Amino acid sequence: MIPVDAIPTDDRGFTLGDGLFETLLVDDGPPQFWDEHLERLTAGCAALGLPRPDPLAVKAAADDALVGRSGRLALRITVTAGSGGRGLDRPSAPILRVIATAAPAARPSGPISLVTSNVRRNERSPTSRLKTLAYLDNILARAEVRGLGGDEALMLNTRDEVACAAAANLFWIVDRRLFTPALECGVLDGVMRRRILAAAAGLAIEAVEVRVGLAAVQTADAVFVTNSLIGVGAVASLDGRAMPSHPLVASLAAGV
Amino acid sequence: MIPVDAIPTDDRGFTLGDGLFETLLVDDGPPQFWDEHLERLTAGCAALGLPRPDPLAVKAAADDALVGRSGRLALRITVTAGSGGRGLDRPSAPILRVIATAAPAARPSGPISLVTSNVRRNERSPTSRLKTLAYLDNILARAEVRGLGGDEALMLNTRDEVACAAAANLFWIVDRRLFTPALECGVLDGVMRRRILAAAAGLAIEAVEVRVGLAAVQTADAVFVTNSLIGVGAVASLDGRAMPSHPLVASLAAGV
Repeated sequence: MIPVDAIPTDDRGFTLGDGLFETLLVDDGPPQFWDEHLERLTAGCAALGLPRPDPLAVKAAADDALVGRSGRLALRITVTAGSGGRGLDRPSAPILRVIATAAPAARPSGPISLVTSNVRRNERSPTSRLKTLAYLDNILARAEVRGLGGDEALMLNTRDEVACAAAANLFWIVDRRLFTPALECGVLDGVMRRRILAAAAGLAIEAVEVRVGLAAVQTADAVFVTNSLIGVGAVASLDGRAMPSHPLVASLAAGV
Repeated sequence: MIPVDAIPTDDRGFTLGDGLFETLLVDDGPPQFWDEHLERLTAGCAALGLPRPDPLAVKAAADDALVGRSGRLALRITVTAGSGGRGLDRPSAPILRVIATAAPAARPSGPISLVTSNVRRNERSPTSRLKTLAYLDNILARAEVRGLGGDEALMLNTRDEVACAAAANLFWIVDRRLFTPALECGVLDGVMRRRILAAAAGLAIEAVEVRVGLAAVQTADAVFVTNSLIGVGAVASLDGRAMPSHPLVASLAAGV
């Protein structure tokens, strides 16, 4: 496996966003939740009609990216449909390109100010549930709320249902029950999302995947977001209104 | 201006789809409709909050890509948000990366079989009206209809309105009036779309931008699609039903 230092200009991941990625936390040890990330990457390729990525090639690329690195790192593994094809049409037998890079990952800096964005998730596209190379909507959502003084964007879908944050899944607590938007709301099937749901089961906390509007989150007892780099991030305010802290959030974070 | 042969793995266009592109036809002469494409690229950068691309740098990249090339070519100009930033957040002063490539462009191969896709355009995102690096939805739509024997996908938006084809704008004719979906349907503001609307004005044909469902297209007198590479492409069938030809389509194509 030759590590890829640069992408050819005809790579379909670059030209058309035809690919997927995974972000894994490396924190004084092997990449966290490797099997779960590889499983999701493999399932994503299948969903997009791409060949199955070779686990050994993915592992070799990741190992190369981590050589000589230490500290808290974000390991990114990108798989693209490779080169070739004509316009939108892929070649008949695409050859995946696998790229891994590592960058320092700062520790989360405390409770999050969440602000609702005007950019909507498209729950009517299969890509809304996959970690594809198309993150421009999320970039715009994040930039919008940064301009309003927020840390992270809350995104609704085109049916006005709550979906997720720009770079994280969303959870909330009401009366010791745990809620999160159903995947059909246009939600990334997050590795940390799955682990939180599993942790809830381990703590005998009822967890419900729902299709609901913003009011359900606004009136929750507590709100938090999750991804592989921040783990569990408590939400301190939603659209400027303070959100209370809740002991269950720390319990769930400890159970992941 | 140094021509870019490869993209760094940290380019935001590659990692997150943070960028735009233009496709121009080169056919025994200079790139067609250069000013219109440059204007749209510039407007797109403004819409995304990116700096204004330097017209001289864009021209130099295009010239480099065309050195020693002849025949019918597709010239692609890609502008990305460059490298840097942290996660979704761009650096405070992004430095655009400009890449131009040229590839042979076959002549259009005749009337098109159009099939409606299940993948929806997200009219609730500003990116649906821009030619961004995120084309995965369109790739999936095209692949879906190829699997059904079609040539090109017709895409609706999440409101069930007709939007566009996977790689082209959509027009139809009813009683010598010309119809096309309004941009607010989640439609790319196509250079050829604008020229067709201008050609209609020149021919004293009433042109109407509309928000309508699929039935309006199914019952039209004729349907055609447009983009910079195919120009005007007559639609021979829609979802398996033959569509008539119409003299106005050729008149509009001649007037572009």
